[in-house]
Amino acid sequence: MSDLEKDEITEKEFDSVEEMREEQIDNKFAQCTELLERKRYAEFARVIEEMNPVDTADFFSELPYHQIPTVFKLVKKGRLADIFAELDTEIQEKIIHAMTDKELAYIIEDLFLDDAVDMIEELPANVVTRIMRVATAETREQINKFLAYPEFSAGSVMTAEFISLNKNMTCSDAISYIRRTGVDKETVYTAYVTDERRIIEGTVSFKDLLFAKVEQRVGDIMDSEVIFASTVDDKEYVADTIAKYGLLAMPIVDKEQRLVGIVTVDDAIEVIQEEATEDIEIMAAITPSDKPYLRTGVLETWKNRFPWLLVLMLSAIFSSAIITHYETAIGTYAILTAFFPMLMNTGGNAGSQSSVAIIRAMSLGEIEKRDFFRVVWKEFRVSVLCAVGLGSVCFLKTIAIDFKFQATEVLANGAVQDNLMIAFIVSVTACCAVIFAKFIGTVLPMGAKKIGLDPAVMASPFITTIVDTVTLVIYFAIASQILNF
Amino acid sequence: MSDLEKDEITEKEFDSVEEMREEQIDNKFAQCTELLERKRYAEFARVIEEMNPVDTADFFSELPYHQIPTVFKLVKKGRLADIFAELDTEIQEKIIHAMTDKELAYIIEDLFLDDAVDMIEELPANVVTRIMRVATAETREQINKFLAYPEFSAGSVMTAEFISLNKNMTCSDAISYIRRTGVDKETVYTAYVTDERRIIEGTVSFKDLLFAKVEQRVGDIMDSEVIFASTVDDKEYVADTIAKYGLLAMPIVDKEQRLVGIVTVDDAIEVIQEEATEDIEIMAAITPSDKPYLRTGVLETWKNRFPWLLVLMLSAIFSSAIITHYETAIGTYAILTAFFPMLMNTGGNAGSQSSVAIIRAMSLGEIEKRDFFRVVWKEFRVSVLCAVGLGSVCFLKTIAIDFKFQATEVLANGAVQDNLMIAFIVSVTACCAVIFAKFIGTVLPMGAKKIGLDPAVMASPFITTIVDTVTLVIYFAIASQILNF
Repeated sequence: MSDLEKDEITEKEFDSVEEMREEQIDNKFAQCTELLERKRYAEFARVIEEMNPVDTADFFSELPYHQIPTVFKLVKKGRLADIFAELDTEIQEKIIHAMTDKELAYIIEDLFLDDAVDMIEELPANVVTRIMRVATAETREQINKFLAYPEFSAGSVMTAEFISLNKNMTCSDAISYIRRTGVDKETVYTAYVTDERRIIEGTVSFKDLLFAKVEQRVGDIMDSEVIFASTVDDKEYVADTIAKYGLLAMPIVDKEQRLVGIVTVDDAIEVIQEEATEDIEIMAAITPSDKPYLRTGVLETWKNRFPWLLVLMLSAIFSSAIITHYETAIGTYAILTAFFPMLMNTGGNAGSQSSVAIIRAMSLGEIEKRDFFRVVWKEFRVSVLCAVGLGSVCFLKTIAIDFKFQATEVLANGAVQDNLMIAFIVSVTACCAVIFAKFIGTVLPMGAKKIGLDPAVMASPFITTIVDTVTLVIYFAIASQILNF
Repeated sequence: MSDLEKDEITEKEFDSVEEMREEQIDNKFAQCTELLERKRYAEFARVIEEMNPVDTADFFSELPYHQIPTVFKLVKKGRLADIFAELDTEIQEKIIHAMTDKELAYIIEDLFLDDAVDMIEELPANVVTRIMRVATAETREQINKFLAYPEFSAGSVMTAEFISLNKNMTCSDAISYIRRTGVDKETVYTAYVTDERRIIEGTVSFKDLLFAKVEQRVGDIMDSEVIFASTVDDKEYVADTIAKYGLLAMPIVDKEQRLVGIVTVDDAIEVIQEEATEDIEIMAAITPSDKPYLRTGVLETWKNRFPWLLVLMLSAIFSSAIITHYETAIGTYAILTAFFPMLMNTGGNAGSQSSVAIIRAMSLGEIEKRDFFRVVWKEFRVSVLCAVGLGSVCFLKTIAIDFKFQATEVLANGAVQDNLMIAFIVSVTACCAVIFAKFIGTVLPMGAKKIGLDPAVMASPFITTIVDTVTLVIYFAIASQILNF
């Protein structure tokens, strides 16, 4: 066997699991579809039972809508809530409509409170009324409390299922207590020590309990430096803190400092992904939406995009006005307009590099308010370096390439002298545009944050509009001086 | 007390914890600085010991560089590795230089393997040589194995500290085994069941062990539907899978399917944040960098940005060429140039909305290859809706506002007829530009993915350049037909 052949075999063995897994899931889905078609429902229920609830939910989502409620009834009772929680609201609604009150009540009580609340927030009023009617008084009260938390808040993503211990318990008592009560809790791996007023005193990880001596008191091994947040803190703060400190969950307290819930790491990841998507969308002049791309209708997508395009289009009246003002001069020096796209794009790109870098750094907490001048000074030096480089290349390029496209009759009237001057005007403008754009791209997002606006709004499209206008002003100011118009 | 006053108090009680915590940390830092200044080192060591290692690392990072190694020696032994792992590589290097071989060996052995490898990857060769010299043979071998995994791979972010069980153990044996061996493992909450060849057979969560009957066998309660990945899978796949299924850790196997490590949820969050930053940077025409914004030098920042600006600037020769080609016509109809910025920006913004939305949806796994036509068809309908709206408003705006800025001598020669025609040309071009831009913005990222390129490269700046050129071609094609030039 040649070395080459050996290499190929090694490559093959090294294949990634990602595609294999996709194939496995596709096969599983095909098997499920077949079982349903052949009406072998008991077997289908068995296959479903062994699948991960997330995959099962994916399978349900691919079924024709009218079929979902019937198929969902085949799911074994113990799995119902797990799968239900993973479905899109529209499908959940479809299923609820086909359920008896008893079935609905069972699901509602079995769902984790945060999943139930997430769903209720998006369901139409009549369905919510029905849910509230079938829920137990206790669940109803809790749901109502959770519904009151604003959408941005830690309260809106927390769950009420957590374990609280008393500091006087011994570790072995604590472990048996967790064993007795912990089955339904969303995480049993971090427990919270509270006093009789439910005020949080410390945290203790299951690992600590496990490795402690059985007779030690919880109060002796707990970590009393608790990292917590309040229900009204921004959920992004909670998610970032969980990420920063590598926590599995973060306790949430109410205004009286009483422990009312926890945010778990899986919810934190969701928040982190949502917030990144939101930033990206706002930076691209799109109103953020909670829904996945393919679940957003055409009209809704249009509604999220059109107003921004409209405002940005209308804001171009400034650049139009400047150009129109110099209409007569342009009649004489039409070649000047050939550099509009280059100048405006270069300015826009330079500005968006700075703004995007800074917006992202701010949302990752890498830049704080006190770093303002350091950031401006850094961006200024970068902008000068970029400007000098771009200006020089621009000068050469203008002379070497751009003028080649001129019609010969224009070139005829001794244009060489003019061309050098125009190349000079263009490249000096490019320099100024880059420096100005990077300055604006630095200052606007940081300023927005200072006055409590979302910095992401100050990204590329917004900056482009300002930079375009200023670039044109600089361009014509220099040109009119040199060419005397 | 008036209602207003009551409200104010409630508001105050509802204050968020975020700012309070920032203040607490600032105070703690001030206290530490003071203790250091007064040379009360024992007390300083005690305060540090109670602080979270992440915060302590932040404190060290703010000290003057030359002071760090001395202060670091005050940290109690048990805390050294935890704090050390959180520091930036430059600071780690500084500290290593000041350490004796014995101290260094202690830290290296105490670090989690993935943290040690992360550090070694960025240290200069001579420091790495020294680390390898002081490490035990076993650690050295493991480090070398980990260093061989490519940067994008699951292998590069996994950790070798995990718990493996045998399926014939009883649950109570398993728990005592974990108690005996688990202290150093990065997570004890998920254990992996392997056979004698170390091939993975199942996972069992600590929760399952805890709630099982003590005499049950691990093999009976384990979940044999293991979600795993290979060392050569993309780390992004691993992170997204952890997020999707809400896992605390994901097992990683080598080419012979043997369990060699796990990726924990805290590392997955880091990957998710890094990848989002990378996408955002590439979309803004910046070469991504691993380092935080303020830790990147001016020259490095310049190097990440300048080449893109240069290429994009040079690519503007196409739009310049088109405009130059029509120089004579522009001499007559200079007013046409007033709409360059508006047309190009509208096209660019429309295109970047689509491309960014699609790039993000692809990276979140919301769009698969098979959805290609669905996505194109959706974007086409959205683009037509946007185009019609923008075209109409554009026509009205052009007539009502833009012509007002013309110099009177231009307006004099019976310009009304011309103006209507020009407004028509402009708005039809805007329509076409929006539809074309959204098409390009849809097709390019998906095409890039298909041929294995990073879709993020096909975002705004790249699309702007194409859209600019095509918009100008459409503009002059329509104008030359209607105005006969």
